[in-house]
Amino acid sequence: MTSPLLNVGIAGLGRLGKRHAEQLARNTPGARLVAACSPVAAELDWARDELGITRCHDTLEAMLADADIHAIVLVTPTTLHADQTSACLRAGKHVFVEKPLSLDVATCEAVEAVAKEHPGLVAMVGFVRRFDPSYAEAKAAIDKGELGRPFLVRSQTCDQNDPDGFFVKFAPSSGGIFMDCSVHDIDLARWMLGNPKATRVFASGTIALHPGLAECGDVDNGLAIVEFDGGQRAVFYASRTMPHGHETTTEVIGTAGTLQVGMGAHLSRVQYRDTCGVGHRALPDFFARFGDAFRLEMQAFVSACRGEQPSPLTLNDATEATRIGQAITRSLRSGSVEPV
Amino acid sequence: MTSPLLNVGIAGLGRLGKRHAEQLARNTPGARLVAACSPVAAELDWARDELGITRCHDTLEAMLADADIHAIVLVTPTTLHADQTSACLRAGKHVFVEKPLSLDVATCEAVEAVAKEHPGLVAMVGFVRRFDPSYAEAKAAIDKGELGRPFLVRSQTCDQNDPDGFFVKFAPSSGGIFMDCSVHDIDLARWMLGNPKATRVFASGTIALHPGLAECGDVDNGLAIVEFDGGQRAVFYASRTMPHGHETTTEVIGTAGTLQVGMGAHLSRVQYRDTCGVGHRALPDFFARFGDAFRLEMQAFVSACRGEQPSPLTLNDATEATRIGQAITRSLRSGSVEPV
Amino acid sequence: MTSPLLNVGIAGLGRLGKRHAEQLARNTPGARLVAACSPVAAELDWARDELGITRCHDTLEAMLADADIHAIVLVTPTTLHADQTSACLRAGKHVFVEKPLSLDVATCEAVEAVAKEHPGLVAMVGFVRRFDPSYAEAKAAIDKGELGRPFLVRSQTCDQNDPDGFFVKFAPSSGGIFMDCSVHDIDLARWMLGNPKATRVFASGTIALHPGLAECGDVDNGLAIVEFDGGQRAVFYASRTMPHGHETTTEVIGTAGTLQVGMGAHLSRVQYRDTCGVGHRALPDFFARFGDAFRLEMQAFVSACRGEQPSPLTLNDATEATRIGQAITRSLRSGSVEPV
Amino acid sequence: MTSPLLNVGIAGLGRLGKRHAEQLARNTPGARLVAACSPVAAELDWARDELGITRCHDTLEAMLADADIHAIVLVTPTTLHADQTSACLRAGKHVFVEKPLSLDVATCEAVEAVAKEHPGLVAMVGFVRRFDPSYAEAKAAIDKGELGRPFLVRSQTCDQNDPDGFFVKFAPSSGGIFMDCSVHDIDLARWMLGNPKATRVFASGTIALHPGLAECGDVDNGLAIVEFDGGQRAVFYASRTMPHGHETTTEVIGTAGTLQVGMGAHLSRVQYRDTCGVGHRALPDFFARFGDAFRLEMQAFVSACRGEQPSPLTLNDATEATRIGQAITRSLRSGSVEPV
Repeated sequence: MTSPLLNVGIAGLGRLGKRHAEQLARNTPGARLVAACSPVAAELDWARDELGITRCHDTLEAMLADADIHAIVLVTPTTLHADQTSACLRAGKHVFVEKPLSLDVATCEAVEAVAKEHPGLVAMVGFVRRFDPSYAEAKAAIDKGELGRPFLVRSQTCDQNDPDGFFVKFAPSSGGIFMDCSVHDIDLARWMLGNPKATRVFASGTIALHPGLAECGDVDNGLAIVEFDGGQRAVFYASRTMPHGHETTTEVIGTAGTLQVGMGAHLSRVQYRDTCGVGHRALPDFFARFGDAFRLEMQAFVSACRGEQPSPLTLNDATEATRIGQAITRSLRSGSVEPV
Repeated sequence: MTSPLLNVGIAGLGRLGKRHAEQLARNTPGARLVAACSPVAAELDWARDELGITRCHDTLEAMLADADIHAIVLVTPTTLHADQTSACLRAGKHVFVEKPLSLDVATCEAVEAVAKEHPGLVAMVGFVRRFDPSYAEAKAAIDKGELGRPFLVRSQTCDQNDPDGFFVKFAPSSGGIFMDCSVHDIDLARWMLGNPKATRVFASGTIALHPGLAECGDVDNGLAIVEFDGGQRAVFYASRTMPHGHETTTEVIGTAGTLQVGMGAHLSRVQYRDTCGVGHRALPDFFARFGDAFRLEMQAFVSACRGEQPSPLTLNDATEATRIGQAITRSLRSGSVEPV
Repeated sequence: MTSPLLNVGIAGLGRLGKRHAEQLARNTPGARLVAACSPVAAELDWARDELGITRCHDTLEAMLADADIHAIVLVTPTTLHADQTSACLRAGKHVFVEKPLSLDVATCEAVEAVAKEHPGLVAMVGFVRRFDPSYAEAKAAIDKGELGRPFLVRSQTCDQNDPDGFFVKFAPSSGGIFMDCSVHDIDLARWMLGNPKATRVFASGTIALHPGLAECGDVDNGLAIVEFDGGQRAVFYASRTMPHGHETTTEVIGTAGTLQVGMGAHLSRVQYRDTCGVGHRALPDFFARFGDAFRLEMQAFVSACRGEQPSPLTLNDATEATRIGQAITRSLRSGSVEPV
Repeated sequence: MTSPLLNVGIAGLGRLGKRHAEQLARNTPGARLVAACSPVAAELDWARDELGITRCHDTLEAMLADADIHAIVLVTPTTLHADQTSACLRAGKHVFVEKPLSLDVATCEAVEAVAKEHPGLVAMVGFVRRFDPSYAEAKAAIDKGELGRPFLVRSQTCDQNDPDGFFVKFAPSSGGIFMDCSVHDIDLARWMLGNPKATRVFASGTIALHPGLAECGDVDNGLAIVEFDGGQRAVFYASRTMPHGHETTTEVIGTAGTLQVGMGAHLSRVQYRDTCGVGHRALPDFFARFGDAFRLEMQAFVSACRGEQPSPLTLNDATEATRIGQAITRSLRSGSVEPV
């Protein structure tokens, strides 16, 4: 740790932004959170009071003007991700951007082009599940050949039902259930299968509990099959209506073995026996499941910025996930098989 | 048990036929196995020596001529199922026929028409998984409303890989992986979801280990999505290449709960801990998994023949399973969404 | 199966007696249930009506006078077991006797002496758990050396709480919780460890829910440690107050591996997810857990009587289990370590 | 967080000391690690280089002389714990001391007496398992009454076998397997059962793999039963010879429910299926199992020192654990039931 500390600024301090900020301020070796920007005054107050951040800005532009900052973490609304990523790169800053980079493939590619002009800068997208220790163990097992040749991924992102249907309000801008939830599964499938090229997709869905989604062509339970050019296949399931909690799982099937990550959504190591039977409690949400992963993700970003290891995720991973996710979304709406 | 015993004749004494014959001879209250027919002399010898069956016939016709027989159990090759079922009914016998009734929908419907002419006779198809105690418990839970409204079924039939690829030789006549394996899952999905009408399907597959399947357009791993007209969905997975054993599972997802049958493929109630970790052994095959179900299936058939309870499965269940299975098979070959 | 059928008579037709009778009548190859005896007229009526048994007797003596009977199954009250076993042997009949042979070691030894005078007759005691497929798998794994040298057994027999405390009424004659429940665990520990000689025991217990047990010095939850002369150890737990169901488990710990039988008390292969979490239902009682074992136990007895294989359990197994069980019971009462 | 930061000094920088030091330096809100002491120069170098600690001392006395330090964390050899704890308190410092406080009850009581003279200082012993999220969840469930009245604890600390038997060398000074391992289980049992008074104990053990232990009267597998005056019972198992990993578990049985913590020793959320069956990998050691707990333990200590919440563990908890642990150890040696 002889190299100087990485000075980081964060943009966006909503629920996830606060979490990243806390990690950077307290628990990310090699980094120092020195600045924050947000259009919301209360968020900047929080950064000042809780984390002792003194350089607080209303706009990203103001923060980018600070030459003492080496890297930016973007936890802003999705619609801003692409332009802000480009702006950071042009300002000479390393940049971490939350997923998705953009709901539009051409926009993703345009940001990729900007990144190529700045090969010395890290530009990393936040597919946090890759940093979960269990997913990392799974990937390592695959890379060691324990599964033989992996040829099928079954992956799901299933949220506990919110009876208030809060997400229904955001449906028009979320890009739909596949872009919002399955984009993680898409990235994992590519990663586990060795980045094959997706060729065709088919999707289907249903509305089980939230009829308000129909207006914008969305569903609360969706299924998709993806075909890859090496013969690999993936099947995804996304749900907003799980009765028990958040169950995010991934299964990789190979010629010599299979592995399953996350089945059962165990909240803890406690099991109960009572008149209802034998069981355990379930994880309530994504944050409870991926707390460690958010911490390790920031560490990986900082480590890449400091040149200690390559960035584990590139903007192209974001582009490819959007490309597949958009094809799936088109298929849901067209009812037909769609090319990717 | 005051009504007279049901006299049963069995046709076909291969592996599964022998199992049915043993159940009927030894362990099916209310029934008496009195006759057998097979074109294979060794099979009839077995019936004579092991089960004490004295009325042994070369042909089904000969057995049907025996007025003392009330019911026939058909465990013959698939291509004979339909005609033999009709022949049994026309001879005034109750009939149990192994799945599938036929690979052809029109043929199924023709047998259904014959059955309608004989309303006093039981004609039951052998979807054995319905008789497994765990599946029966699952269905009862659904019927009690414990899951709210069930809207999604995920079901798989996955066989342990046979390195010799014995099934490859039978691929040309099996009807393909979906007709051979998934037809059980199709029947279960209809049963669990309350018999909705399937409207569209999409299938995809890959050959992981058995290239010989390509010749007849078959795969060793297949995926399918089925859409039903009430908005319900099903997704099926069939595999010939599982590394660990036979894992046949079904998951039903409802608005208030979900249930999973068979996950883990536990061979027994024993768990092991050693230098490899913590685990259990897996079921080797369908017979190890469904031994009890084969017994209960015969009991249900006999009970229906004796008028003690309605037949739990009708020929129409066979027709509908074939209809969906054939649409899935067409989709695998066409690469397109297919109407059912 | 060319040898003649074994003619069996059953004595005692309570809950367990009926189960044995049904197995012998319907599902035990090589045997024929031909006679029954009971002092209860309704029980004999049941045997006549349900099983078609025509030779019904008021007394065991009457049944033993029937020269056509080869073997007797005793499912009578514990206090009669020893004398009746001797009587059967003296009458030249093979005999199966439910556990325990006697609550008194000297009495067990006396019956053993009678059996030695009739070396051609099978005398088998009903430690049914040995016939459970999972226990049999465990024993086979140990015999193959998969655990290295087994040196510790942890075993429990835990019944679901009966709020009515029916068993409290029987406490005075049951011999106490260890003689009633743990005797199975004692037999299993001896079996799994290779029949070492027990040297010392210590027991402790508590009354959690049934104060009525105090009168006869019994408890509703008991713990015991047994020391064997080869350094092996066993620890037993018996409970009458489980909240969730019947959980009977055994763990064997060896120098190279461990195994666990029965953990979780799964009722079936169904798992549920709902607002309470993720779980499964539990077995309600011993019968639900050991249904298959009762069937296989009768088959093993019949097979031994027919000379096809040696008896898997001898009267000495009963004597040793009583010897250890009585030492544990003495320790519970004395509060001290007791020699065996 | 308006109160000033707590300045902490650490004594002892072995494996566990380093872990505590890292937590305090990087991840314990409200605290600042400002000093370290160790007789080992390399350890102080590590503190200087890795954590930037500038105040490094050879002796505890030198560190205690620093008036700017508010609290001391003792991770020194067991034989020093008691005297150093007293010295810290007399120097006016809050003190955290690793378990056990002492192997001698009278010595524990003497330190308790010193602590009573300094009621304004926190003196906390390191029973880390109380801070594990799963154990905390279990305790909360019990406190909410979900188990009814808890009356039995079964708890184990079982280490993976070390073929080199490293611990054999330390056996003479470790206090024996029960003082070294089971002291955690003893503390948990008291905590879960509501601090009842132990009255009598019995212990037994065996040497499965490490004959070298015999010299100092120790065993590599030990069992103990503890009786409490309210009728509660506990049974402990400690092992040095697990084949698969570190499996530390605790089961609490109550009149209305039971709970189990840690069964299965899951390394992660990954499950594998291959030709060996279905299973998961096991935790290798205590550190892998209780990483989070070590962090939360330091947070709780700091929080107590800062007056934000009472200390969750007192020196009396250490005294009582030693009292019971010593009685168990006496019983192992005497072969008799021992009073506590």
